[in-house]
This record gives sequence, structure tokens and C-alpha cells, in this order.
Amino acid sequence: MIRVGVNGYGTIGKRVADAVRSQPDMNLVGVAKTSPNYEAETAVRNGYSLYAAAPDRAAQFARAGIDIAGPVDELVAESDVIVDATPSGIGEQNCELYEEYDTKAILQGGEAAGAAETSFNARANYDVGHADIVRVVSCNTTGLARLLKPLDEEYGLEKVRVTLIRRGGDPGQVDRGPINDIVPDPAEIPSHHGPDVNTIFPELDIDTAGVKVPATLMHLHSVNATLESDPTDREIKETLREESRLFFVPEQAGIDGMGPLKEFARDTGRQRGDIWENCLWEESITMEDSELYLFQSIHQEADVVPENIDAIRALAGQHTREQSMQLTDKHLGVGLESMFHTNRQRVVPSSADD
Amino acid sequence: MIRVGVNGYGTIGKRVADAVRSQPDMNLVGVAKTSPNYEAETAVRNGYSLYAAAPDRAAQFARAGIDIAGPVDELVAESDVIVDATPSGIGEQNCELYEEYDTKAILQGGEAAGAAETSFNARANYDVGHADIVRVVSCNTTGLARLLKPLDEEYGLEKVRVTLIRRGGDPGQVDRGPINDIVPDPAEIPSHHGPDVNTIFPELDIDTAGVKVPATLMHLHSVNATLESDPTDREIKETLREESRLFFVPEQAGIDGMGPLKEFARDTGRQRGDIWENCLWEESITMEDSELYLFQSIHQEADVVPENIDAIRALAGQHTREQSMQLTDKHLGVGLESMFHTNRQRVVPSSADD
Repeated sequence: MIRVGVNGYGTIGKRVADAVRSQPDMNLVGVAKTSPNYEAETAVRNGYSLYAAAPDRAAQFARAGIDIAGPVDELVAESDVIVDATPSGIGEQNCELYEEYDTKAILQGGEAAGAAETSFNARANYDVGHADIVRVVSCNTTGLARLLKPLDEEYGLEKVRVTLIRRGGDPGQVDRGPINDIVPDPAEIPSHHGPDVNTIFPELDIDTAGVKVPATLMHLHSVNATLESDPTDREIKETLREESRLFFVPEQAGIDGMGPLKEFARDTGRQRGDIWENCLWEESITMEDSELYLFQSIHQEADVVPENIDAIRALAGQHTREQSMQLTDKHLGVGLESMFHTNRQRVVPSSADD
Repeated sequence: MIRVGVNGYGTIGKRVADAVRSQPDMNLVGVAKTSPNYEAETAVRNGYSLYAAAPDRAAQFARAGIDIAGPVDELVAESDVIVDATPSGIGEQNCELYEEYDTKAILQGGEAAGAAETSFNARANYDVGHADIVRVVSCNTTGLARLLKPLDEEYGLEKVRVTLIRRGGDPGQVDRGPINDIVPDPAEIPSHHGPDVNTIFPELDIDTAGVKVPATLMHLHSVNATLESDPTDREIKETLREESRLFFVPEQAGIDGMGPLKEFARDTGRQRGDIWENCLWEESITMEDSELYLFQSIHQEADVVPENIDAIRALAGQHTREQSMQLTDKHLGVGLESMFHTNRQRVVPSSADD
């Protein structure tokens, strides 16, 4: 069993903790948190051992009637791998602590790429070698890596251009904008997403443009890729349907936006209505000469969760990519297409080159 | 003097009527409207002769205490050119009336391209020949034509790819969505915008993808163009700065979204806060090899107004493109950049080829 600690129990941390608990080869040592808010109550309700991320906050937890298992140092000491899901910038500062206890660690995409030894995406670069600290790339970069890797393998990517229409904030972030606006964010091109994708695909020629809108549900990517070959729409769809973490929003399902898409996910019984898969809009997948166009939606709170689970196994070094992705997907429940009885079963890809 | 009637006095019609009145060589015969709502009151307040677009509604106007100058037929009979700004689909039906009175007519972009003899954009194809009925293309197509024409002239356009992030509705349309969503609209690629641009540039290789978001202020275009030559960012900016209807949102102005952009337009004293110009985000104008990227915002209620004025002159056949655009811009007040004292003066382009 891999002993896993989760440092930071917010949007990502609480989802990763639940996902760790779902895996047969992992043991959740506990979670660390700085303040006794409603999410701390959730951890207690779930029976997770709660550690104080900041030593001086112990009194606050005591006043809130929440028992603390100990300081975060103990969590780090007792874990084989720490998933750091603290706010952006804090993860890098925490690395000293992880190194002190010789505990491997996973940072999130909000950290600078240089904070870790390598950037991680399960489909594109599972093999982390002897790295002790890896960084699971952001939700948007994860979504792009999952899509681009099989396209690159099958058809070759000559050039990729993406406009990312980003949600302004998460549903819980009530104070963020924009309101009633479409904001170039950043106004400069490229946005940081292209260079971040290059931490996964160093050779890829990719330009990205980012825009922020008054939505909280998911991001939308308008993707264009000039391929090195000339497949049909149908071949593209067949290639992408093989991928377990790409979900095709069926044309006939009556789902015409992310509102109904998330309503559907909630209807399936998924906790928090999470969508771990990229959601590809089937009607949008179009080849024009050697150029591919498509839309995909990315649930910003959820798509990195299976990647964190795979990163834990990659650091522990006991499984291949295929084994890890299959375990993760099976025990987490990845595969929304199985909810549509007309869709055929998909399998985790098993390519020969990694 | 060109005698102009405006049939339909809603979002576009009321703006065109005001613009006609501002022009020294035009006489506004009157406007026609179907119902005595707040916009009809505006027409009365402005001293415009109000005609009943539907004969059976005369009693409604009488009950509202609004004097009617006569039926719409009289307006058509007394006008040299009618600007039809009725709802989509009605314009095509009205053409029979215009032909009956031998009155030239301008339809709006909501009509099918086939409803008119030619599609119109002042910068790209002012010369309408002997056409009696022309169609001013939609706000989005107008915005793209203004941008693409000078790029094509200077550098050649090999391929254009645009993601249009569209406002869900106009400020007055309270019942339209989306709310808190990013909706592929349509989910298919291309959206209708690409083919509509081809009514202006038949040979252009352009693909467009459309998305709808919860905003009412303006559209945003994320534009990518593969050029046939390899200019610098600076050369692109110099070329586009020559265009009177392209406004560069200055990097240093503290304008970071369309909210502040429209606030700025209102501050300048423009009626209704209208922005007739394409608003190019200066920081976004970027060359990557021979590929140009940029963002531009388009005020959906306003950018076709100067085009309608030029279309009137094109149909009347008394002015060249340069003369008409200069007259329109001068008397309407096009040229937001003059509000920034650090910007140099721009001129209406005068190219040799038309």
C-alpha cells in the first residue's frame, strides 16, 4: 500500500483525498488544513485524520471543536507521497519540508514549472524516472495534453492553435469577475497555456489565446490543429474514442451547454457532479483539409484528480502507465460514455511506445 | 440631397436614422415602426416623421397619442433609398414593396445573402454596380471584413481561423441566455460567419467557430491569420492604424475589458455609448512566424451604422468609397483614437485599387 498524505484540503485537495481513498493500493494517512472552515468539517465527517497545516492555528481548530491529529510535519513523515494542494506559490515553499522528511511530493499546476523536477500528465509522460517532486499540470494543460498526445501519435501535429474561453471562477468563488464581460486574459498572445503545454511536449508548435467570461461551470477550448497527415472526421473520432479520459458529448443527448452537461454528471450520481474526463463536443469534430477543429469542455475542479492519482503511482514506481490509468479509472469510475447505452465500450489505450 | 427612409426603428434602425440626420448630403424622410413602444416615443421626441409599418396598427398609435405621418408605402414612395432594419426575415418580404415603388433598399445582415443582389462592406466592396438592393453584412462579418481587407491587400491571406466569443443578447434583451455558461453555438464547425465572410471575399479560405457567453456588451473575436508574407508586429500595427474604423485599445489606458471600453465610449459623449469602430486589443497583435494573432471587440449594435450610411451613398452612386467613408466618419464622429492625445491622427485609407 502506498501511504498518501494530502496537504491542503480545498477545491483540489478534497477531491484528491476522496480519490485516494477509492484506490485499492493506497492508504490515506490524512489531510492537512490551515483553517477550520466547512471543508474541515467535511474531512471530519469523512473520518480523515486532520493535521494542522499551520502550527499556530491549532487553537482555532480547538475552538471549532475539531480534533487535530498533529502538525503537518507528522503527516509528511508518515507518508510515502504527499499531494500538495495548497494555494499557488505555497507548494514550492513546502518542498523544503518534504525533502527534510525524504517524502516524495506532487505539486499542482499553479506552481511554477521550475518548482518540480518534471511536469506530469498520465497519458503523455507517465514515466517520471527518479524524480522526487513532480507537478501535475493545470486543468487546461491537462485537458490539452490528453487530447494532443493521441493526435500526435496517430497523425503528427504540425501546429496547434487554441483559444481558451475560461470560466471566471469556481462556483464557490463569489467575489471574482468578470460580470457581463468577455475579457482578454491575458490580452497578450500567447497566454501562459502554450508554454505550459510545452513542459509536457517540448517540441510542439502551439499558440494559445485566453479569454475570461462570466461562467463558473467549466472551461471551453476552441482547438485547431494542423496535422501532418490527412485523416477523415471519422478516423479522428475513432482515434479519440479509444481514450478513456475523453468523453464525447453525444449529438443526440440534448446536451447543448455545460449547464446540462453538469446536470447530467450529477444525475449519474457523481460526487460534487465532478467530470474527470475532457468533454469533446462530437458535432464540432471537423477536418478541413489537414486542419482539425473541435470544441472541448474541461471541468476545472476535477480533471486533474485522476492525474494526481497516477502521479502517486508514478512516484511510487510500482506500476506501468497502462496499469495505473486502468486502476485509477476503474476505482474512481472514469468513463461517462458508459452512461449512454448506445455508445460502445472504451478501453484505456495501450500503445507500444511507453 | 439623398432622401432616406428607415423602415424598422429598433436597435439598428434608430441608430441609422440618427446617423442619416448627421450627414450633410442626406435628408431623413421619416421612419416606420409597427408598435408605439418607448422607441416610437424617441422618434417623436427627435422630430422624425413616423410612419405605420403595419396599416392595422394605426389605431394603436392613435391610442398612444402618437401622430402618424402615413402608411409605410408613402415613406417608400418619397425615399430614394430605404434602409430596412426590420427583424430578420421581414426585410426579404419587404423587397416587393420597395421594387413596386422603384426605391433602392438596404437590408441588414440578418437576411439571407440571396435576398439582396450583393453583400456590402464599405472598406471591402463599396462598388455595388447597378444593384438596387444590397445587404449590409452582420456586425461580426462587418468587423471581420474591415480587418481582413487591409491585411489581404498588404500581406495576402493564406488562411484565416476565427473563434467568435459572442454576447448572448443585447442589453435590452432580458429574456435571452446563456446564464453562467459557455455554449458552443453552433456546436458544428464552421459557424455561419465563415460563409458570410465569403459573400464579401469569395476566394478567402476562412474557418470560424462560434461560442455564446453571458455577456451583453460586445462580441470578442480571437483571430488567427496565416499570411502570405512575413511582416513584423510593428508593420501589422502600422497597416491597421491607417484604417479609420479600426480603433486600437491603448495598452496604457487602463481598459482591460469591454466594460471599461464602453464606459470610456460613454465618457466621450457618444450617444448610447456606441462604438462604431472595431476595437483591436493592441497588446494582442502578435506575429508568430507568418501567423498573425489578435483579439478584436465588436459592438454588435453599432458597427454596421457607418456601413449603412456608406451603402446609401453607394446606391445613390454619387461618391467614391473614399469620399463616402470620409463624409460618414467626419459627420458621425468616427475615430475614438483622437480621444487619446498620445495617438497620432489616422486617415481614411485611399488605396489605388478601387
